[in-house]
Amino acid sequence: MGKDKSFKENSVKVIFLGGVGEIGKNMTLLEYNDEMIMLDAGQAFGDEEIYGIDAVIPDVSYVLQNMKKLKGIFLTHGHEDHIGALRYYSEIFKKIPVYGTALTLGLVERHLKETKTTMKLNVVKEGETVKCGQFSVEFIKVAHSMAGSCALAVRTPVGIIFDTGDFKFDSTAVDGKNTDLQRIARVGAEGVLLMLGESTNVERKGHSQSEKVVMEGLESIFREYFNKRIIITTFASSNYRVQEILNIAKKFNRKVLLAGKSMKGIVEVAEQVGELKIPQGIIVNKIDNLKPSQVVIIATGSQGEDMSALQKMSQSNSTVLDVSEKDVVVFSSSPIPGNEKAIFDVVNNLYKQGCDVIYDSLNDVHVSGHAYEEELKDMLEIVKPNFFMPIHGEYRHQARHAKLAESQGIRSSHIAIPQIGDVYAVNKDRLHLQSTVKCGNVYIDEEVIENGEQIVGERKNMAENGLILILASIDTKRCVLDGYPEIICKGFAMTDEFEAKLAEQIALTVASSKNAEDLNEMGYQIKRAVSKLAMKRRQFPIVLPILVRA
Amino acid sequence: MGKDKSFKENSVKVIFLGGVGEIGKNMTLLEYNDEMIMLDAGQAFGDEEIYGIDAVIPDVSYVLQNMKKLKGIFLTHGHEDHIGALRYYSEIFKKIPVYGTALTLGLVERHLKETKTTMKLNVVKEGETVKCGQFSVEFIKVAHSMAGSCALAVRTPVGIIFDTGDFKFDSTAVDGKNTDLQRIARVGAEGVLLMLGESTNVERKGHSQSEKVVMEGLESIFREYFNKRIIITTFASSNYRVQEILNIAKKFNRKVLLAGKSMKGIVEVAEQVGELKIPQGIIVNKIDNLKPSQVVIIATGSQGEDMSALQKMSQSNSTVLDVSEKDVVVFSSSPIPGNEKAIFDVVNNLYKQGCDVIYDSLNDVHVSGHAYEEELKDMLEIVKPNFFMPIHGEYRHQARHAKLAESQGIRSSHIAIPQIGDVYAVNKDRLHLQSTVKCGNVYIDEEVIENGEQIVGERKNMAENGLILILASIDTKRCVLDGYPEIICKGFAMTDEFEAKLAEQIALTVASSKNAEDLNEMGYQIKRAVSKLAMKRRQFPIVLPILVRA
Repeated sequence: MGKDKSFKENSVKVIFLGGVGEIGKNMTLLEYNDEMIMLDAGQAFGDEEIYGIDAVIPDVSYVLQNMKKLKGIFLTHGHEDHIGALRYYSEIFKKIPVYGTALTLGLVERHLKETKTTMKLNVVKEGETVKCGQFSVEFIKVAHSMAGSCALAVRTPVGIIFDTGDFKFDSTAVDGKNTDLQRIARVGAEGVLLMLGESTNVERKGHSQSEKVVMEGLESIFREYFNKRIIITTFASSNYRVQEILNIAKKFNRKVLLAGKSMKGIVEVAEQVGELKIPQGIIVNKIDNLKPSQVVIIATGSQGEDMSALQKMSQSNSTVLDVSEKDVVVFSSSPIPGNEKAIFDVVNNLYKQGCDVIYDSLNDVHVSGHAYEEELKDMLEIVKPNFFMPIHGEYRHQARHAKLAESQGIRSSHIAIPQIGDVYAVNKDRLHLQSTVKCGNVYIDEEVIENGEQIVGERKNMAENGLILILASIDTKRCVLDGYPEIICKGFAMTDEFEAKLAEQIALTVASSKNAEDLNEMGYQIKRAVSKLAMKRRQFPIVLPILVRA
Repeated sequence: MGKDKSFKENSVKVIFLGGVGEIGKNMTLLEYNDEMIMLDAGQAFGDEEIYGIDAVIPDVSYVLQNMKKLKGIFLTHGHEDHIGALRYYSEIFKKIPVYGTALTLGLVERHLKETKTTMKLNVVKEGETVKCGQFSVEFIKVAHSMAGSCALAVRTPVGIIFDTGDFKFDSTAVDGKNTDLQRIARVGAEGVLLMLGESTNVERKGHSQSEKVVMEGLESIFREYFNKRIIITTFASSNYRVQEILNIAKKFNRKVLLAGKSMKGIVEVAEQVGELKIPQGIIVNKIDNLKPSQVVIIATGSQGEDMSALQKMSQSNSTVLDVSEKDVVVFSSSPIPGNEKAIFDVVNNLYKQGCDVIYDSLNDVHVSGHAYEEELKDMLEIVKPNFFMPIHGEYRHQARHAKLAESQGIRSSHIAIPQIGDVYAVNKDRLHLQSTVKCGNVYIDEEVIENGEQIVGERKNMAENGLILILASIDTKRCVLDGYPEIICKGFAMTDEFEAKLAEQIALTVASSKNAEDLNEMGYQIKRAVSKLAMKRRQFPIVLPILVRA
């Protein structure tokens, strides 16, 4: 399935700017002639905060070059990895209609308030279809860890492209609404040309557990720790989980305090759009007069995030409350890969404060929102697509999902594993890698960083190797140093001995040059000589010579 | 159990320079009057490589101040977190006798060859006792993931201190030798004053699995992938695992290639000391003429280590072999926390090369070498110590292990959770936090880095915030800038607008100063002004002003 420029039949282009080969940052384009729609616009989960990066979003150069084609943005659900990029691109896309369910767009709006921008948001109900140029997009309800999650059945001139979105099957869902299997089956019966299938939990055997399990797990904790204050941390966007906690709190006669800005904000949005029913009078803003046994706190910080409500509590740094042996802290969550250390730091510190901490999987206090192997098989069975592409996962997930599809009877020639930047063309006869486009990471530090790749590269380099700054005054006429060079180090372990050696080498470099007039060239020579000496010690600092004329 | 200087009874000091509050870097001192012994001398597992750090070892300032007291170094087993620091301190400790089993000291010797140093190594057999001043140390065989692992029963003038070392119970061990429960029970019956108990797997319910399980798991892979080349990655030091693979390879008529410097080196050591039986003629150095079905490769790189054999293969960067769809790669290992991302990078790349990859826990290709909850309980039952301290784990592990001991009937006043730097005093009446000593991390980059904390701190700072360098020529007489300041950035996203603003502010700072003669003070003022402007944009670069007189 190599590139083939002769492939010019009537086909839809499927362009991956994200959501493949990694976790997070979903963005797929569907293009037909002079029209294009975008499916999701997410940001990456990442550990780039070591390099001071707030967020990583897709490079949309290709979209900018084809802005006239872009007719609409369709969001499957409101998680950051599906909507997080919009706030940074809101100015660019302000004229493009954005479609999503009420909770999804409520969360987008919350982001846009922060950036003080607006977009053309259009609320769609589950089950509705949006006509958009030659595309029509049907929103089909799927069960997931938040309300308003949808798969998208996109009818195109060459056939149906079905994007599962993030989903699971849950026949005892908190809101009683399972994935709409009937509707998906009907779309499948119509004939699906291409299915884009999420792959997150393909490594997990069997069937995911129902959200109902968590209800039981949390209740048993309420019974066991009846005389302690209970602090539960979970994603603010997990409205079902929050609903369960509110219901249990009511049952056990506890008041609820929301801790963390995003917890308060998102709960407010979820209630406004009708996806959260808050029992009358249960939420309080103060707990000073309440006994531990009368309180539940729902807090942000389940991923060990810096400055989150829970992290502050763990460091006795919270303005809201101090934790102690009177508290039990429950992680109703699982770690996003890469966050383990940050989470365990918080756990360790909570233990040091004397808290009980429940954070492992043995306690049924968390279930995944993503389909396991058996559900992925079932989805393939129900949709029976002609072509299949595994998305939403690292390469290992995609590769396994591809094998799974093969074992379900889809021919390997009808399966492709897309990578970021790939442009596939698809019609009823063929699925075909046609070309690639500019893609990659755009880094956010408060706002979009220009040359982000270079800046982050420099930071990595300084982090690993440190920096040597050389200040030298040069008598350019006589080709000699004027005095001793000053050597300043940051993050580099300099010894007196090595410094003397460097100074000697710098003097030698200047003296042996035929022409010192060109200070740029001289700087380059010095940099090379110093780097060479460091390299012999297996050190690779950034060397920055600053030369002035004597 | 606060500090109490009046506590001057006849007691042994137990000093923790490592092995508590974190994973790795074990080092405990036992001190009685003017004599002291060291238990283990390990390096940390860590993710400090982002900051260019090779290894992190304990700060031994306290030992240096008390060198005259130090009578011996006793090693429980040969894992890096128990012996890894010795090579860096070999010069300092060259006159101190070091005791350990044959494999342990074989591995120490391998390290010392690299640093071209020697130490006074004394091989001890399992079951033997070493007299050392007023201490006598009995080496008691324990089952673990490598041979020659021992618990240490240290007889002191105030009673027995029992250090479990790293252990599990395995009644079907590869070498047929389980933890010597009889001997430990006899020591327990003698009366153990204080037990130091490893806590690694306290979070895992039940009983660890026998190493024998792996044998079965690996055999089933050999059967299933009978026509593929099999590449197995594991710790080179896991000699039992290597033995199993050799045995299975023989059974299935495959030759074995060892890949990776440490794999070859450690296998050689293990064979020399008799802890590995290599079937005649099974090891080969070339596999060019062999079919995939005739080969097993045992490779380093199970933790995704940079430049390891497996990582090179995954990047088609290996001089030994290229991997393809003809290969299946088996991770006979589990991730050390913090290594997940590096490991998954390797897995993703192997999939991209077309390999099958087996890396999850569902396949019984790895078991832990550390006791689970039920074994930890049993150990406490058998030893029945008067006092107990959980060691070898993060705080969360220690806290859980302390609770476990309490549930086993040890009074909470007889349990203490030590932290790094703590000096406890113990005798038959009391276990008591007496004082603390200088401790912490010593960073290694090829060799010990002086001021390591500061260097790493600067690297972290540059990584997160970048650097702004300001070159300005100042007319100190007239208190004005001579020309425009030059602004150089590394890892900082500078805009034209912000640069102009900075230049303006710098000029203003110089002009408004009453006295520009003191360039140090002027530099400080400029640094403060620039930092303030950056802070308003929520940026926190290192600012480095370089001022010269015009």
